[in-house]
Amino acid sequence: MTPSPFLGELIGTFLLIFLGEGVVANVLLKGTKGENSGLIMITTAWGLAVTMGVFVAQKFGSPDAHLNPALTIAFAFKSGDWSNVASFISAQFIGAFLGAVCTWLFYYPHFAATEDKGLKLAVFSTGPAIRHTPSNFFGELAGTFVLFLGVSAIYSETGTGVGPYLVGMLVWVIGNALGGTTGYAINPARDLGPRIAHAILPIAGKGSSDWSYSWIPVVAPIVGAVLATLLF
Amino acid sequence: MTPSPFLGELIGTFLLIFLGEGVVANVLLKGTKGENSGLIMITTAWGLAVTMGVFVAQKFGSPDAHLNPALTIAFAFKSGDWSNVASFISAQFIGAFLGAVCTWLFYYPHFAATEDKGLKLAVFSTGPAIRHTPSNFFGELAGTFVLFLGVSAIYSETGTGVGPYLVGMLVWVIGNALGGTTGYAINPARDLGPRIAHAILPIAGKGSSDWSYSWIPVVAPIVGAVLATLLF
Amino acid sequence: MTPSPFLGELIGTFLLIFLGEGVVANVLLKGTKGENSGLIMITTAWGLAVTMGVFVAQKFGSPDAHLNPALTIAFAFKSGDWSNVASFISAQFIGAFLGAVCTWLFYYPHFAATEDKGLKLAVFSTGPAIRHTPSNFFGELAGTFVLFLGVSAIYSETGTGVGPYLVGMLVWVIGNALGGTTGYAINPARDLGPRIAHAILPIAGKGSSDWSYSWIPVVAPIVGAVLATLLF
Amino acid sequence: MTPSPFLGELIGTFLLIFLGEGVVANVLLKGTKGENSGLIMITTAWGLAVTMGVFVAQKFGSPDAHLNPALTIAFAFKSGDWSNVASFISAQFIGAFLGAVCTWLFYYPHFAATEDKGLKLAVFSTGPAIRHTPSNFFGELAGTFVLFLGVSAIYSETGTGVGPYLVGMLVWVIGNALGGTTGYAINPARDLGPRIAHAILPIAGKGSSDWSYSWIPVVAPIVGAVLATLLF
Repeated sequence: MTPSPFLGELIGTFLLIFLGEGVVANVLLKGTKGENSGLIMITTAWGLAVTMGVFVAQKFGSPDAHLNPALTIAFAFKSGDWSNVASFISAQFIGAFLGAVCTWLFYYPHFAATEDKGLKLAVFSTGPAIRHTPSNFFGELAGTFVLFLGVSAIYSETGTGVGPYLVGMLVWVIGNALGGTTGYAINPARDLGPRIAHAILPIAGKGSSDWSYSWIPVVAPIVGAVLATLLF
Repeated sequence: MTPSPFLGELIGTFLLIFLGEGVVANVLLKGTKGENSGLIMITTAWGLAVTMGVFVAQKFGSPDAHLNPALTIAFAFKSGDWSNVASFISAQFIGAFLGAVCTWLFYYPHFAATEDKGLKLAVFSTGPAIRHTPSNFFGELAGTFVLFLGVSAIYSETGTGVGPYLVGMLVWVIGNALGGTTGYAINPARDLGPRIAHAILPIAGKGSSDWSYSWIPVVAPIVGAVLATLLF
Repeated sequence: MTPSPFLGELIGTFLLIFLGEGVVANVLLKGTKGENSGLIMITTAWGLAVTMGVFVAQKFGSPDAHLNPALTIAFAFKSGDWSNVASFISAQFIGAFLGAVCTWLFYYPHFAATEDKGLKLAVFSTGPAIRHTPSNFFGELAGTFVLFLGVSAIYSETGTGVGPYLVGMLVWVIGNALGGTTGYAINPARDLGPRIAHAILPIAGKGSSDWSYSWIPVVAPIVGAVLATLLF
Repeated sequence: MTPSPFLGELIGTFLLIFLGEGVVANVLLKGTKGENSGLIMITTAWGLAVTMGVFVAQKFGSPDAHLNPALTIAFAFKSGDWSNVASFISAQFIGAFLGAVCTWLFYYPHFAATEDKGLKLAVFSTGPAIRHTPSNFFGELAGTFVLFLGVSAIYSETGTGVGPYLVGMLVWVIGNALGGTTGYAINPARDLGPRIAHAILPIAGKGSSDWSYSWIPVVAPIVGAVLATLLF
């Protein structure tokens, strides 16, 4: 395939979601080898999933490797150049949707072995530990604010070889520190793409896709990332 | 905002405390996704919180990125130049205070869900596992001595791109190895700034701010860092 | 010894398997210091075992350091040059066999102390959490697909000093995310070499070597890696 | 102090042992904040303790930073230059002894709170999970063989800035994979220096220093490292 920013964002986000949702499935679903391995295994893998998604996105033609509509919008807001936003965001959502489909195929027998409908949804999309709209909104906003702040600082201080690794470490610490309330979506494509997959796919014994919550991990990250650009 | 050492120290320390106290809240408070994840999750996040705080401090104008009054005083003691000490320390305390406020807002519903007053204080400030003044003082002194030793060695041996990561690894191992007694404040701003926040904020069902212990994580780190400069 | 690609692949794969199977023995066998330490300890060590295997393979004369017949075949498929394939694969299988023998010697008293025959086999070779041929095949295929994708992206974006470390991180996240179903062999030599050792060695109280499953972690990784080359 | 190889080896080994034995105390002694945190916390900290020990040793005048008599002897065996061996080994033992003393002072109240005499010794020195002289000897020999192999490969493939970090990662994986039987002393100074400290210090309620086992973690690492030089 010919490298392009669209292809890079698509494959990079695909890999991010396949690995990221993969570890959630491993920890939450029944009968896996990683069942009950705890939040630290989840956050470790999400961090490194970002690192690998960035490398792959760069390889396939997206040197900036956003993998996240909130970052894409915030950078457009900052630069004033909105020409690539629709293309980037489309690629990110397609990649996230496909990544969720692959996770479901990968853990197929374990979805069937799991009774709890909430755990099945949690493989796909985030949900609040305590449902509290202002606090949940603030949590997703603040997490993405920190993400944008960290990414900007890392890329201005380091060369490109080490940068994707450090961004993964940033996502690791965000997960450990700020993942306790809403599960740190901090990325509209990461949450909504898989939620659509959850609604469409014939998952054995699935429950609600919790659409009433779904706007928070879409809107709050965008607000958080745009607010962070105002600091610079 | 115009970059300056004051701004860099303030925002860097803010991020350090927001992420560092965030992980403590995640592990200690009730109903979070990381409840009871253990000390290793806490130490991992504090280490990387330092890494990210340093990158952000450098980005906003503080290339030395102390984020810690004990280091600021020790470097002034070593160089004889005290002109920036008051400005740096003010910025560090303001940043630490604001970081603690944000952690409280972030985990707001979980503070309400937690009964144990000691756990709520532990999100903000350190306390001894066994109250034993000479031992606790020695612990904070020794931890900061090792911190200064390590930071000095890392920056003289590596380039700047990798340095902040290695300093984070240093704080990780200090947490794992020397965090067992007093909880390794090793930084007056990290402990006293949030303790003031704990005393002021209207935290649901809070208890004592344990002022009788509060001088140790302020005085001992300064003594430890200054002693370490005598080795060079 | 004179460095050569054969020697490098042999010693590198030996070290990979000795360290990788060593951690499985540590976590699964009775009476070890790491008994029941969980999947995260296993995946952490396998990741770094790859890093160290690559460094050692390079030192002993194999700069490309495949350590994996699936990668060797996929790179030959991509380049059209099959001249070294037989030599590389032989070295990888000999190294993997010897690594498994060393793990058995290393944990000798603990094999005797362990009753469960399945745990003893698990030190040597992988097996499915839920036996389901299409899903197990897809799992090993997908895991190796991601491995090839990640390795290719990492080496095109970073210098050689950091590359082996990042490949280890890639294997870490694959283990955490995609290790939950079949135990991520993703390498025919890693699985079949030790399975032959399990069948031959006089292991105290051993059971079946599960030959009916053994073709999946050999065939599926090769298919996955070759499919991944079609993306480029 | 004037930098010198003697001073570098002494302070580097001191820091290695203070941090390494510190984490064992944190996990094993009663009432600490890290009690029962598991082997992975111990191995993580020992790995990074090596990294930090190497940086500090380099800073204080020992660019090669052995911190381990087995490596010092093996490198002398390889090069034929034995002139610095006595000086290096003396510094390593003095540093290890002082590191153990500091760990005892640091965790002073927790030694008093711990009843189990075996746990107190384990803070200082290693012991076998199953007492089996040939297997224990082979274990320490093999662990140090891998250590020498890895260190040699890392330093020939990477620049100096990243090297100490990668050596720490090597020790991390050795601990996870090969730490399950004897506790991976793989360093005569690391084991015998603290064992002497255990015998001399007035530790509350201490038991035997287990001298009958003490020769294995001294002799086997030297044999393992010298054997590894024959590979090159």
